[in-house]
Amino acid sequence: MQQLPDINDVYRARERIAAQIHRTPVLKSRTLNRLLSAELFFKCENFQRTGAFKFRGALNSVLALDNNLALRGVTTHSSGNHGSALALAASVRGVPAYIVMPTTAVDVKRRAAVAYGAQVIDCEPTLSAREAGAAEIMRATGAAFVHPYNDPRVIAGQGTIALELREQIRLLDTVIVPIGGGGLISGVALALKALAPNVRVVGAEPTSADDARQSLAAGVLIESQEPVTVADGLRTSLGEVTFQMIQRYVDDIITASEEAIIRMMRMVWERMKISIEPSSAVPLAALFENRDSVPGTKIGIVLSGGNSDLSNLPWK
Amino acid sequence: MQQLPDINDVYRARERIAAQIHRTPVLKSRTLNRLLSAELFFKCENFQRTGAFKFRGALNSVLALDNNLALRGVTTHSSGNHGSALALAASVRGVPAYIVMPTTAVDVKRRAAVAYGAQVIDCEPTLSAREAGAAEIMRATGAAFVHPYNDPRVIAGQGTIALELREQIRLLDTVIVPIGGGGLISGVALALKALAPNVRVVGAEPTSADDARQSLAAGVLIESQEPVTVADGLRTSLGEVTFQMIQRYVDDIITASEEAIIRMMRMVWERMKISIEPSSAVPLAALFENRDSVPGTKIGIVLSGGNSDLSNLPWK
Repeated sequence: MQQLPDINDVYRARERIAAQIHRTPVLKSRTLNRLLSAELFFKCENFQRTGAFKFRGALNSVLALDNNLALRGVTTHSSGNHGSALALAASVRGVPAYIVMPTTAVDVKRRAAVAYGAQVIDCEPTLSAREAGAAEIMRATGAAFVHPYNDPRVIAGQGTIALELREQIRLLDTVIVPIGGGGLISGVALALKALAPNVRVVGAEPTSADDARQSLAAGVLIESQEPVTVADGLRTSLGEVTFQMIQRYVDDIITASEEAIIRMMRMVWERMKISIEPSSAVPLAALFENRDSVPGTKIGIVLSGGNSDLSNLPWK
Repeated sequence: MQQLPDINDVYRARERIAAQIHRTPVLKSRTLNRLLSAELFFKCENFQRTGAFKFRGALNSVLALDNNLALRGVTTHSSGNHGSALALAASVRGVPAYIVMPTTAVDVKRRAAVAYGAQVIDCEPTLSAREAGAAEIMRATGAAFVHPYNDPRVIAGQGTIALELREQIRLLDTVIVPIGGGGLISGVALALKALAPNVRVVGAEPTSADDARQSLAAGVLIESQEPVTVADGLRTSLGEVTFQMIQRYVDDIITASEEAIIRMMRMVWERMKISIEPSSAVPLAALFENRDSVPGTKIGIVLSGGNSDLSNLPWK
């Protein structure tokens, strides 16, 4: 069992990564405030380097490795944002990155990892093939495995978002964060509960991929079974570490229909003029579908990323 | 002949509109800097209220009216951003707005004007029908006509962009601005030449709608003849006032192919995670196609607006 990260790990993560990450802005929208009768503050990790929050955790992990280990490089398996994040993190440290990618990964993700200097290794699109591919890399190169979420250093890196948000906006009532593997909400919730225990931390999932909500309700880790959702970043199930963190620090989990996710993604693009990926729209969509206690409150929303395929947007 | 605006008009415009407009951010992009070997600063008027710079000039015009005149309302003909900008400006002052719109205007523009409380009057999609529609409104209501660009107060309002940009980024070598009717570049160039005469002010047009470049070269106003370009905001020809302003203050005009406009629009969306309309991509596209003197310089680029039809983007 890995040790759970605490607030000091988040502070250390910030020290490590501050020079290389963007301190992302917080945006507001009159239209959305009016529609919800609330005051919303959007923490824009879609503007983070590599286009997603994942770079924070990946960079913290890579920079925390001791020199001998780091020189052998890092590896992961990923079809999404963690792969390019780890590729750039390794490039920042000047060490090799080996990214195992299923052949079904969209081409733009593959090109992003290659552009950051990573070696991309193809594998069949199954979890066992991905894990076998990474294990083979580790044997052959001695590279360190960096898990996309179930890792205390990755979680501590994502928690730096909450440190920034606290400095940017005081007196929030609630912060809402999308849940896929749970790394993002684990870090954010950990930091907020240490710094501002009165802030409610709420997770948001697609209704069709609500493994975290089910797990929290049941008290045991329940994995999702090939969920079908437009929010491709949220199809993953929790890990042992992130499940414990969520049990400890998260107040509630709310869900959003596919229709609302697509509608809110489009509304953010149209009204706020920023690109967000479907996963980033899930907290807002869940708010619209669970709005009883929303009016009159101040709500922070983490927009987790902005990497969409512009040739294949989820609306007509 | 109308009197040309000067820097004091721009300062007065800022006093009038400051409380209602957004001071828009300036963004940077590592990727684009690397591709051009230059340092680019994007002034994000796509984040302005109504999604485009037009709100500045429209608001300045409406707020500058004396009370008796203002109470009768304001009118214009527009199929684009000026219509919704004037509608919101009138709403801010609490006076009626009558927007004459060709029946071919996209539905989202019509709905925007209506949402801001304007009365929208349909007309045939010809310039004469538009002008006749506005003239009829003026006769019937006494509303004041607010031209989209050929008006000193509108130009002074757009010039406030340059005041902000100067405060946000010092020591620019060049500022590039798209040219449609010329109101935006007239205001920006006027203000920059007054405050920082060494900054080169360059206009950018689609190659297929280069009436301003032709006019500047010929020394007489040449109107474009139904130009075909994806940059729908730049199909308009210059007016008498804006042509004089451009002759006086603009150093050069460069052009961009349709292919480059679409490619750069997409690149800004993908890399910077912000939505811009095709017209906003024209300066960047023109830079890529006219890059001899670009390397090593600091360039300000005005992103004029972000109102695209997300169901009909110009790429496959």
